[in-house]
Order: sequence, then C-alpha cells, then structure tokens
Amino acid sequence: MTAVKKIAVLTSGGDSQGMNAAVRAVVRSGLYFGLEVFGIQRGYQGLLNDDIFPMDLRSVGDIIQRGGTVLQSARCLEFTTEEGQKKGAQILRNRGIDGVVVIGGDGSYQGANKLTKQGIKTMCLPGTIDNDISFTDYTIGFDTAVSIVVDAINKLRDTMSSHERSSIVEVMGRHCGDIALHAGLASGAETILVPEVEFDLNEVSDRMKQNFKHGKRHSIIIVAEGVGKGETVAQVIQENCPDYEPRVTVLGHIQRGGTPTAFDRNLASRLGDFAVRQLIEGISDKACGTIDGKLVATDIDKVVNTKKDFNMELYELALRLSQ
Amino acid sequence: MTAVKKIAVLTSGGDSQGMNAAVRAVVRSGLYFGLEVFGIQRGYQGLLNDDIFPMDLRSVGDIIQRGGTVLQSARCLEFTTEEGQKKGAQILRNRGIDGVVVIGGDGSYQGANKLTKQGIKTMCLPGTIDNDISFTDYTIGFDTAVSIVVDAINKLRDTMSSHERSSIVEVMGRHCGDIALHAGLASGAETILVPEVEFDLNEVSDRMKQNFKHGKRHSIIIVAEGVGKGETVAQVIQENCPDYEPRVTVLGHIQRGGTPTAFDRNLASRLGDFAVRQLIEGISDKACGTIDGKLVATDIDKVVNTKKDFNMELYELALRLSQ
Amino acid sequence: MTAVKKIAVLTSGGDSQGMNAAVRAVVRSGLYFGLEVFGIQRGYQGLLNDDIFPMDLRSVGDIIQRGGTVLQSARCLEFTTEEGQKKGAQILRNRGIDGVVVIGGDGSYQGANKLTKQGIKTMCLPGTIDNDISFTDYTIGFDTAVSIVVDAINKLRDTMSSHERSSIVEVMGRHCGDIALHAGLASGAETILVPEVEFDLNEVSDRMKQNFKHGKRHSIIIVAEGVGKGETVAQVIQENCPDYEPRVTVLGHIQRGGTPTAFDRNLASRLGDFAVRQLIEGISDKACGTIDGKLVATDIDKVVNTKKDFNMELYELALRLSQ
Amino acid sequence: MTAVKKIAVLTSGGDSQGMNAAVRAVVRSGLYFGLEVFGIQRGYQGLLNDDIFPMDLRSVGDIIQRGGTVLQSARCLEFTTEEGQKKGAQILRNRGIDGVVVIGGDGSYQGANKLTKQGIKTMCLPGTIDNDISFTDYTIGFDTAVSIVVDAINKLRDTMSSHERSSIVEVMGRHCGDIALHAGLASGAETILVPEVEFDLNEVSDRMKQNFKHGKRHSIIIVAEGVGKGETVAQVIQENCPDYEPRVTVLGHIQRGGTPTAFDRNLASRLGDFAVRQLIEGISDKACGTIDGKLVATDIDKVVNTKKDFNMELYELALRLSQ
Repeated sequence: MTAVKKIAVLTSGGDSQGMNAAVRAVVRSGLYFGLEVFGIQRGYQGLLNDDIFPMDLRSVGDIIQRGGTVLQSARCLEFTTEEGQKKGAQILRNRGIDGVVVIGGDGSYQGANKLTKQGIKTMCLPGTIDNDISFTDYTIGFDTAVSIVVDAINKLRDTMSSHERSSIVEVMGRHCGDIALHAGLASGAETILVPEVEFDLNEVSDRMKQNFKHGKRHSIIIVAEGVGKGETVAQVIQENCPDYEPRVTVLGHIQRGGTPTAFDRNLASRLGDFAVRQLIEGISDKACGTIDGKLVATDIDKVVNTKKDFNMELYELALRLSQ
Repeated sequence: MTAVKKIAVLTSGGDSQGMNAAVRAVVRSGLYFGLEVFGIQRGYQGLLNDDIFPMDLRSVGDIIQRGGTVLQSARCLEFTTEEGQKKGAQILRNRGIDGVVVIGGDGSYQGANKLTKQGIKTMCLPGTIDNDISFTDYTIGFDTAVSIVVDAINKLRDTMSSHERSSIVEVMGRHCGDIALHAGLASGAETILVPEVEFDLNEVSDRMKQNFKHGKRHSIIIVAEGVGKGETVAQVIQENCPDYEPRVTVLGHIQRGGTPTAFDRNLASRLGDFAVRQLIEGISDKACGTIDGKLVATDIDKVVNTKKDFNMELYELALRLSQ
Repeated sequence: MTAVKKIAVLTSGGDSQGMNAAVRAVVRSGLYFGLEVFGIQRGYQGLLNDDIFPMDLRSVGDIIQRGGTVLQSARCLEFTTEEGQKKGAQILRNRGIDGVVVIGGDGSYQGANKLTKQGIKTMCLPGTIDNDISFTDYTIGFDTAVSIVVDAINKLRDTMSSHERSSIVEVMGRHCGDIALHAGLASGAETILVPEVEFDLNEVSDRMKQNFKHGKRHSIIIVAEGVGKGETVAQVIQENCPDYEPRVTVLGHIQRGGTPTAFDRNLASRLGDFAVRQLIEGISDKACGTIDGKLVATDIDKVVNTKKDFNMELYELALRLSQ
Repeated sequence: MTAVKKIAVLTSGGDSQGMNAAVRAVVRSGLYFGLEVFGIQRGYQGLLNDDIFPMDLRSVGDIIQRGGTVLQSARCLEFTTEEGQKKGAQILRNRGIDGVVVIGGDGSYQGANKLTKQGIKTMCLPGTIDNDISFTDYTIGFDTAVSIVVDAINKLRDTMSSHERSSIVEVMGRHCGDIALHAGLASGAETILVPEVEFDLNEVSDRMKQNFKHGKRHSIIIVAEGVGKGETVAQVIQENCPDYEPRVTVLGHIQRGGTPTAFDRNLASRLGDFAVRQLIEGISDKACGTIDGKLVATDIDKVVNTKKDFNMELYELALRLSQ
C-alpha cells in the first residue's frame, strides 16, 4: 500500500540545469513503484489551466542531458491568492492526483506549502542555480553554473596574461554569494565580492596594485550581482589604478543554461527518487536536500524561514590561496 | 642560399587564439629551413627594449593549444614615431636579424610597414578575432571567437525556451560585424545588428512580436559592439515589447581566450610557415592570408588601405533561415 | 515559376554533425521560396515505406545545434535494386514531390543518381565526417569530428607530459586520412598514419626515440582506421621502444556526435539553401559542395567516380612543425 | 610555534586532474603560515635523486586550471626497499625538511607510511581518478574523469539515436567501479558492469532486446576495465542480438587529462590547505579526505588496509532510472 497513487511534477521559478534530470527521476521512480505520474506544464500557471498530462517512461527519454526544463516554467500571480490555491488543489483532486513534486526555488516552495494546506501531499526539490536554499548542501544547477563561470574565467586568464590586465566578472547571486565564492576559489580569483561579506573597493584596488607589483600577471575580481553591477566596480578600480584598465564580463543567463554536469544530474536523480519514496511513505510538506551528502527531508516552513549560512571558512581559504 | 639568415617574431595589439600556433610555426619552420629564430617579448615595446631571445624547438613545445600569446603583447607609442622605428631597426641590425614576422591586427601591420622602410624585411600575419583585415578569408582567432559566442548562445537557448524570452548578446566587432554575422547564422539568431547594415529597432521589435505569435519560443538578437551597447538595444525592445523582457549578455574578453579551434590552429600553422618561406625567398613588406582557401601575400600598404567587404549574401541567408 | 513545387529531404548513411542544420536550411529555404517541403524518415528505407510527412518552419526549430539527424538514417538493400528505385520514385510522384535533397555520403549519392534516372530531380549534400567526397573542400561534420579528436588529444597531452609516454589515437577514416591529417596538424602529432601515405613502423619508433632524447615530453601517433588498429601499432612500438609504453585510445563513434561547430553549421546552412535554389532553377543530379570556399554543383556521377586528392602539402607541413 | 618549518610536496603514481590545484594549495598555505615549501620533481624517484627545489607564490601561478602535474610523476622501485626509504629520509633531513605532503593513490600512500617510519612527518592526499581510496567521499580527479565519460556519452547518444544502436563504453577502474557507476547514473546507461557486482551477459542482452522493443532508441553499456575489455562484451552482445551491432569506445587516458572541474579544484584546494594545517599542528602519518563533506585525517595504515565500500544504493538507483 502506498500513501499516494497518482502524483504530478512541475517546475517553477527560474530554470536551472538538472531540472530535467529531476523530472526524469520523479517520473521513472514513480512508475517503477507502481504510481501513475503526470506532468504539469508551465508551473503553477499550468496547474490552474489544468495543463496536465500523463507521463510514461519514454516521455522522459533523452532529457537527462538537456538544460532548461521540458515542463517549462512561468510566473503565476493567481496562485499567490488563497482562491488560486484552492482552485489548484481542486483541479488535482478532480484528476485523482494526491501528491505533487515541485522543483524550484524559494517562491516555489511557498506555493507547495500552500498546496499542502489545501490537502495535497507535496515534496519540494531545490532547483535553482543560486544555492540559496537552506537545509541542503547544494541546489540542483549550482555545480553547473559554477562550472560555466570557471570555464569563462579560464578563457579570460589567457588574454589577461598576454596584456597584464584585470578582469571583473559579474555573476548571479542576489542574496547568496555561493556562485561567486565557489567559482572564485576554483579559478584563483584575488577578490570575491559577495552580499554576505562587507568590503571596501579602495582596499581591493590597493591589493590589486600590490599583486601586480609582486609579479602577478592578471587579477580577477568576481562580483555577485547582489552587491552591485560589475561596471560600477570597474569605475572605482579604474580611478584608483589607471594603469590596469579593468574589463567587465557579464555572464548573465548563460549561467542557467547548458548541459548539466554529472554532479548535478546525479544530485537531481537522487533527490527526485527520494521525493517519490517519501510521498509513497505518506510524508508531505517537506523540502528534500542533501546534508553532509545524505538525503534529508525538512519542513518546507523551516526551510523558507531559515537563511542559508555563508561558508566563511571557504571564503578565507579562497583569499589565502589567491595571494 | 636564403634571403634571410636570422628572423624574429613578435605579437602585437589585442591577442587572439591561435597566435601561439603561429609563433610555433614561424619558429619551427625557420629552424627547419636552417635559420636562426628569435622571439621578441611584448610587441614593439619589447623590440625597443631589446627584449629579444633565441628560440629553439622546445621553446614552442606545448603551446599550440594555448590561448593568449607566450610572447605577450603591449601598446607602444614610441614606435609610432620615426625615431622609434629607426631605433627598432637598429636594434635588429645589431643582432644581425634581417627579417621579422609580425602577428597582429591593423595597427601592427602599419608598424611592420614602417620597419620595412627602415631596411628590415617583414611579413605580417592576421592575428585578431575581429576578421577585420582585408585580403584574407579569415583572421587567426576568428573561428574560435565565433565558437565561443555560439557556445554561449547554445546555453541561452535552454533557459529561453523554458521561459519564452528574448536574449540580447553583445559581441566584439567595432568596425566589422563578422563575429556577429557568423555566430548569428550558426546559432539561428533572428536579428543580427552590425555596423555594415542599417537597421531600425522598431522593425526589430515588430518582427520579434510576430515570431512569438507564430510559435517561436525564444528570440536571439546579436549586437556587434560597433553599433552600440546591448543594454541600449534592450531598453528599446523592452519599451516596444513589455511582455518579453530581454536579457543582456556581454561576452567581453571571453571571446579572446580559450584554446584555439583546430581550424585556427591549422590556419595559423599554414600562415606561419608560409611567412617564413616568403622571407627566405626574399619577399618582404607583405601581409599573408588565405584567399578562397589559398595562401596569398599582399602588399601591407594595400591591405591596411582596403576596407574588408561585408558578406551581404551570408547576412541575407542568416535572416532567411531564422524565420 | 519554379522548376519544382514540392520537395523532400532525407538523410542517409552514417550520420554526421550538421545534418540537422542542413535539414533546417532545406526546409526553411524551401518554404521561403514558396515550395512545400516534406521530410522522409530513415533514409531510403523510409522512402520505400512512404514514411513521409510535411515540414513547416517550427518542425526544424531548435535543431541547428543538435548532433545526429532528426530524420534518422538506416540501411536499405531494397533501394539498391532497380525495382526499389522505381517504387521510390512512384511513391514520390504519388505525393506530387518532384525534387529530393539527399544528405549523406558516397552510397547515398549513388541512390540519388538512380532516383534521377527514374525522373525525380535530385541534389546531394556531403553529410559525412570522413571528408572523403571529391569536389568539395569539406564535408558537413568533418570540422566537428576533427575538433573532437583535437579536444581528446589536448587531454592526453596533460597526462603524457606528467609521465613521458607515447599515445596512440585511432581515429575514423577508412579510405581517407583527412581526419587524422587535420587533427594531427592541429594537435602537433609527431606521426600521422593515413591510407594515402606509405609508412614503416620501425622508422616511426626510431623517430620517437630521437624525439624523447631531444627533450620532448610526449609523443602522439594518430592512426586512421584505414591503416589498421591502434592496438597493432602499439605492439610494434612497444617492441621497439620498451621504455615508452604506448597507450591506445579508440575514439570510435564519439567522433560522430556532439553539437556541430559553427563552421559545420554554416557550411550546412549554405549548402542546404544552395541545393534548394538549384532545384528551383531546374538543375538536377548534382552534388553540392564548396570549392575554394565557393558554392559549386557537380554531376553526381563525376563525384562518385573521382577519388578525393590527399593534401600532401599539409601532410608535410604537419611533420615539419612537429619536430 | 609550528611543528614543522620546512615542508615538501610530491605527486606520485598515475596523475589526476586537480593535482596541480592541490600542489598550489600546499605551497600557498605553507607560505601563508610562514613555512618554507619545496617541490620534489617526479615523485619518490625525484626524492632519491635530490631533485628538490624551493617554491614561492609565483611558482604555482596559473596552474590551478591545468591537468596533469607540474611536479611530474614516475615509478620508483628503489623506494620500495628499506634502504631507499632511509636514503629518502636522509636527503630530506639534509635539507632540513621535516614534513612531506604526498599526492597520489594507494601505492603512494604506502611510500608515505614508510617515510614516517624513518622520522619524517607525512600527510597524504587522494590524487587518483578511480575513487578507490577509502575514508574519503571522493578522490581528486574523480569528478573530472566522470565528467569526461559523461561528455563522451552525450556525443554517442546523438549518433545512436540516429541509427538505433547500442554502444559499449570501456572506462577506467580496475578494482573500483565508481567511474562506471557515477557516469552510468549521470548518462542514463542501461547497463553498468563493475567489479563489485556479478553479472550475466545473457541477461544484459535480453534486457537490451526488451528495451528496444519498448521504444528505446539507444542502449548504453558502461564497462569498468576491471571486469574485462569492452570488445569482449561486444562479441557476446553481438551474438545474442545480431540486429543491434554494438560499437565500442575505449576512452583510455583521456579520462586522466583535461582541465579539472570546479569541484575537483575546490576539493584539492581544501585538502591541500588542510594537510598543511595538520602538519603544522604536529599531526603525521595521516591520509586526508572528506567524509560526508567534512575534512578528516585518517591513519594511512587504516586507509590502505580498508577496501572502499561500493554504493549499492546508487547502483540500484541507476538501474531503476534507466528503464
């Protein structure tokens, strides 16, 4: 006996690489354990439009390696109202769907939480590149986003070394500096500007000058968008160090695309399967994640109300190693 | 009997992928044909500083795949004066160097031309990603730069399809729209804005609206930096089509880095070898290139005074295929 | 007035990267010029099964960057018989299709030639990674295949340098050594074994020993499959140079996959559009290609009966530069 | 007061991606904490040759992104004897070096253990792509190797889908199937053959036939080299399923090369820094790793005498999801 018989899966909010791998895992695990599985197109908006269709093994074939989300995503104001939430639950009940897996970020989690209050069992998966969700080591897409930034900086290094210049790279992360931090450590950036740590651009300029004096042939500054535009940082640096014209790169939505890394595919596969098994056991209203590498389900409420810790140790390591 | 006995090679101006492959070809071909070969560090500035060193087979080992230039590059005001040019020629004569291969763009070519006037045999190779040099099908680095842009747009596609959005990608090319053109054709961009073709942003917006109506799930606009900032284009589009918030990506110097493509390495290898063989035959003051795939040497003077043709046929093809 | 009103497109033989870009170009150019366009699934087999369907603008959306062929490919013995050819032509006539674009290799070209004899207008595009088709500089997929080999060798270099070893890389090319040649030049391979040039493995071993003595830290031998297995070469080398255990890599079908390079996409786009325009002008029974970069249509008969020239100049350049 | 004043670092055994990032971390952390740091060229052989040199901040500049190991590696029979070990320790003492960080696999760990017995403080880091070292979640290089395999399979998928074929991919892993397992899960392989799990090739063939019947368009079989050659598996499959000619790809040493992933660079950076801090605190004879994501140092002896657990849960998940 399973606690659910028919489940649905949707993706919501900004897309991230690995969402398709998660959808695939939900569908195939669901079918494996004898459930009927449905896809909801375009997130909560699609739910309200009853844009729901049955999924079989083949419907998720050949998607594990694709970026974006085959279920698409959209914003939905209506679902933020109680009326909308009731309507959504009713549409699911009409189809006999008793469990929903929601893949997305913070806002999507809150939607799931509301749906639970309307009597639908829910499970959330962290699908966002920003790694800004608490109670999970990593979000699905984060590793790929970091890889893309690091790959871009690999390219910048070549040309910087040829000209002795500094490069400013603006990366995603409104409230969470994790992309900047992990990409900065991996690419040997001298400076990592994140929302979680205060900084002084004059000090940054001074350190840059010192480094060039000591023989460094290039200087990389990573800026999480949450602290401001790369262009703004460039202007201050330019004034302080007119010799080393900084060049700005804005990676933008490139960070959200591309084929997911093996790491993200495997994280997504494990989490998708875990979510299904939790629903089958009757567990609901939880956000799935890995903590210290282990699969864990935490109350949605707790997850959305806890700010993710910033890893100061890693931040200090990055600075220590980029001398 | 060869017309030159000792030759030197330098890279100048903005670096481009494949410069190292060209340096390698000059050095190894030179040695193969019995010449002594020298490297000049940091372009014309290094020449004036007598920053010149002998190169052997191993000195160019393991560089064919590296971006940037191991010889580095720099600006040099002094060499734009006749006095500087005389000094440079004298330094070369002091070392017995009678031929120089210059790898770079337009400005570097003019330097070589001046050096010839001071009695040094010269050969130029087109080392710039912009493809803005006439009398050659392609410049060294162009194919790699286009690949980088196309790879970035591959990533954008995923996320755009998930959200039905438009993307604006600003690419390099101040006077020459070739990167935008070739990357636009290869990535199916609906709109390609280049300095060589007039355009009207209102028409662009209208076409975009039409395309979305007809079922397109994303819209890509490539902007060569020569026509303006991507951000500026975004603002106009945003006003005309508030539904499809355009996102801007500025690829910047990423386009200049990374390992060169096989195409660029082979072009660079052929050109570097050709330049050496030309010098050996006593030919001088020429820019090497391929025309219709064949190796050709053209007077530097003629090359710097001829504007590169824009390929309107290819431009129209790109539009025809991106409906 | 156009000479054809309804055209169909099929892919046949081994697939190659860029086939989808060619299909897209055929479809969109056809529609642009007012034709009806059909797709034939699984090559000549699909034709005989009347597996034919109309294609519109959207049916080729988002495929320009995909490897493989959305039209799939298959072998078809039946179509090698006159009866089969008559049947195929009749099926096309029944649907009012008067022109067919065939994308594939040598064998596929012969099929098209037979179809012409049955009264159907045909145009062939060179879709094969081997670059073994005459009267075209490059085949569609060749540049991508070379890139994949070069990328693999980039990786081998790292580990070889760490251990002072030699690497043997077996690449595709039964009758044509072009992949080996172009990848060998681009990656600085010391030895390039191709069907077009005789060689002696004892000499190869001797040169390898010399190179290591002179300070080379790695040695790369590229073997086109047409000259034998990489493993066989390894055994001879191992006997002659027991100190430098050679490692064998067999790239296999990886060379046929992956997203096409910008070069291949643009070549495919130009050729697909050209084929349609030729058909519209009433031209038939031709193989399209580029010669010295320019679009050219040559009699199919002539193309299949002419062996592609091997570029000895490039081969010698590769050896000269890999000292 | 630090327990060590001068430390050295060496890489040994097969190289792996991220070794350079680990060397960089050891050097820069050592210098940061006031130590003198030396590099030993070519592993234990270099130690016995006293091939030891001081390293400063710049000596590890621009290596974080490089595959292979700048310190090179080599086999050394002499160091397996007690005499050799004594000689090595004496050479270190002569230079005043009291701590050594060894980066490598199992065999390298045993060397370090012996060195400790001769009075030198040692720390080991897991530098091997195989992930076959116990008491660490991951080894340095494993994530990159998996990525390379997954990238290769991405390419194979394209061409397999076009032809309905099966692909056999032979990957590294003599005693440990982790590369096969993680790459298999990430790429949706139907079959994963590893040394840790018994299998029957007839069953494998049957499942393959079933899958094709149920609409799968390709079939991927991953074979860890520890269970046999890919070619051998191919022959059995071929006999059982003559319709789906299997193609074999042998990735070989490609798996050991290439730029390390961000994950491997960050793992290497954390471990290198951790090793230095442990030595400073007087800890010795330990193997560093992460367990459940946390930095841990375990007795070398215990590590080399414990076989790594195989993750059966992940293996079953991979099969469940690849239906």
